Amino acid sequence: MTHRLNRRKFLQYTGMAGTALLLPGKGTAGSYPTLASDEIGLSKWELETPSLCLELEVMEKNLKKVHYKLAGSGIGVRPHIKTHKCPALAQMQLDAGAVGVCAAKLSESEIMLENGISQVLMTGVNVSPVKIKKAMALRKKYPGFIQAVDNPVNAQDLQDAAKAAGIIAEVVVDLDVIKRSGVRTGLPALELAQQIDRSPNLRFMGILAYDGGAQHVKGYAARKARTDQTFEPVVATYESMVKSGLNVEIFSGAGTGTYDMMGDVPGFTDVQVGSYLFMDAQYMAIGSEENEELYDHFDPSLTVMTTVINTNYPGRLITDSGAKALTINKPSGIVIGEPGFTYNAGSDEYGTVTYSEANRDYKVGDRLEVIVPHCDPAINLYDRIYGIRRGKVEMVLPVLARGMSR
Amino acid sequence: MTHRLNRRKFLQYTGMAGTALLLPGKGTAGSYPTLASDEIGLSKWELETPSLCLELEVMEKNLKKVHYKLAGSGIGVRPHIKTHKCPALAQMQLDAGAVGVCAAKLSESEIMLENGISQVLMTGVNVSPVKIKKAMALRKKYPGFIQAVDNPVNAQDLQDAAKAAGIIAEVVVDLDVIKRSGVRTGLPALELAQQIDRSPNLRFMGILAYDGGAQHVKGYAARKARTDQTFEPVVATYESMVKSGLNVEIFSGAGTGTYDMMGDVPGFTDVQVGSYLFMDAQYMAIGSEENEELYDHFDPSLTVMTTVINTNYPGRLITDSGAKALTINKPSGIVIGEPGFTYNAGSDEYGTVTYSEANRDYKVGDRLEVIVPHCDPAINLYDRIYGIRRGKVEMVLPVLARGMSR
Ligand SMILES: Cc1ncc(COP(=O)(O)O)c(C=O)c1O
Ligand SMILES: Cc1ncc(COP(=O)(O)O)c(C=O)c1O
Repeated sequence: MTHRLNRRKFLQYTGMAGTALLLPGKGTAGSYPTLASDEIGLSKWELETPSLCLELEVMEKNLKKVHYKLAGSGIGVRPHIKTHKCPALAQMQLDAGAVGVCAAKLSESEIMLENGISQVLMTGVNVSPVKIKKAMALRKKYPGFIQAVDNPVNAQDLQDAAKAAGIIAEVVVDLDVIKRSGVRTGLPALELAQQIDRSPNLRFMGILAYDGGAQHVKGYAARKARTDQTFEPVVATYESMVKSGLNVEIFSGAGTGTYDMMGDVPGFTDVQVGSYLFMDAQYMAIGSEENEELYDHFDPSLTVMTTVINTNYPGRLITDSGAKALTINKPSGIVIGEPGFTYNAGSDEYGTVTYSEANRDYKVGDRLEVIVPHCDPAINLYDRIYGIRRGKVEMVLPVLARGMSR
Repeated sequence: MTHRLNRRKFLQYTGMAGTALLLPGKGTAGSYPTLASDEIGLSKWELETPSLCLELEVMEKNLKKVHYKLAGSGIGVRPHIKTHKCPALAQMQLDAGAVGVCAAKLSESEIMLENGISQVLMTGVNVSPVKIKKAMALRKKYPGFIQAVDNPVNAQDLQDAAKAAGIIAEVVVDLDVIKRSGVRTGLPALELAQQIDRSPNLRFMGILAYDGGAQHVKGYAARKARTDQTFEPVVATYESMVKSGLNVEIFSGAGTGTYDMMGDVPGFTDVQVGSYLFMDAQYMAIGSEENEELYDHFDPSLTVMTTVINTNYPGRLITDSGAKALTINKPSGIVIGEPGFTYNAGSDEYGTVTYSEANRDYKVGDRLEVIVPHCDPAINLYDRIYGIRRGKVEMVLPVLARGMSR
């Protein structure tokens, strides 16, 4: 169903020969901005390498599964697009039932909104005058834009900018749960929410509480224990807000590692899952409630196709995919079909596979398919993702917000 | 002098408002393809962040210094553009006296040649039929393109493709010095060179011997000892080639860490330095002959400007530049002016600075300037480099080969 819908709604941009070009801002709501390319129809094993490939059927299963798993819990899904930076995938997430998407940066939010993604919650703060002004201009143009804030000075700056823009801007308060972003829980958070509520040009919408340190804790029980602990002050803060009469419409948090642990959190509205679409070596290692060894709620859909370019030594293959194709994140990439292979991407341009046992012989020119170590920064290396179905390139997805770290 | 020349030769492409666009293929030999931008003239402290900045005067000093250091040695400079992926910087390197440039990948080579860089030696191999065909088409169009080869089958494939293209293609033999790329030294290398020499559509040009493992060995003496050892079989191979009557016009190798150790290597023609233009935390740590603590032949010119976005805790600053702005390479970024700061870029979107002593107070919105951990993969995250002179943006350099890992 989703598939047929996807196909019908394709919007093919005509690009330059070979290296298709899609200009930001040309997206249309409800369509998937993909690229015209002469690589469509190729087998993924024929693609020049390194190439970032997405198994569409696996991705579509992941896309649905998070909703299926949360069905009946009253908890929604607000996927974080920092992971894929791709409006086409954001649109598929909305079509699958997401309540909106999250974005980390202003430039990412802009790309999403300009390409037809109408509901964007920016989980990071904007603190420079230029960015604050741009953010409020964005909100003016796209009413579905929600901005995070985590300190009183910044809230006042946003109020001033919203007033200057002639709008009432929706904001959420980001809570400090891992000494990274956010306002301290308890009184500081409550007072910030009240300040926003009093600000004539701001509308307080709720809170964010993402525990970036919990997601990759190995073992379901340990992860759940940590999450429960993190959420104690968060829930107390939420309750103090409700008690003080604030309207907490949004209470968002959790990622792929903890999305199924929010059922008991009072007032919790939606999970900000990102990696669930793709999975990666890091997430596969954390284990689930049902499987301590392999986190199997979602299946790995994102791989890099690479070519063997040197076989001088037994038990050693050199490939064309190093740190610039896979990143140096650990655990390192996983070669599909070769459990005995260790992939080292520590060299910028070369990968080194070492093994004592292989399922076949390898020669120069052979291809390997590698599950990425950590999906976010890997995708951020590529301008396009090859969408693969039944072994062939079905679509080329432009990573329009690639490199948008501002 | 170089500076004045640079200025005169600027070629300003008119781009889209704010996010200037430069199309590949529009470069002109002898001009620097830079971007039109409304950020030109801004102070680097006013740039939105993260921004990748290049101190032009420091870079220009590095650009000249490698030639000055090698003056009289008879050794030339063939800079590796894998580091910067930027035709404008390659042109400056040629103008400063480089004999040509190196590129790691076919797509990088293409971008350089199409943007006016006429002498490009590709140090990596092309093994797929599509890439081999493209490489020979590139050589047909641009006679200054030289291709590396490291096995006999590949040499035959290149011969066939060169014949089909109706050209005689220049090739160099890459030698295996660190079990990565290259043909084994000794007889295998000699026989490969002879095979090429006999191939009617290939012209044997010489050898490559880059020791990627030596560059970052800490301490000049240890680095020199390792280099001497690596070069023993390389030199023996070179001599066997000369003895067999082969014309070894090119004998290239060495990087920023060993460029000053090649004086005694018989027949050695040029160093493939890449990082020398920028330096980084990794290279600063290796020490030079004159300074065991700090490698000071070249000065750090490449930094990321970042903004403090959270100051909840004493001795801790959160910034907007994490792994997607700096990479997770170690040693991590160095905050200029704050020797007591430790920068952790382990989080995708956030940096965390910890310290017990600071030279000033920091508040949200303040900027920090960070020397990058490892220049190559850091540049590969950005589409543009801000060229800074006397504190202001003088030019915006497009990283045209960013992401070109094929
Ligand atoms: C604020 C925020 N929310 C959600 C996510 C998505 O998390 P995951 O990829 O673990 O599902 C991230 C990822 O880092 C994040 O920073
Ligand atoms: C083949 C080759 N030559 C030269 C260089 C440049 O080395 P450096 O940046 O150490 O100067 C590299 C970098 O990895 C390389 O791979």
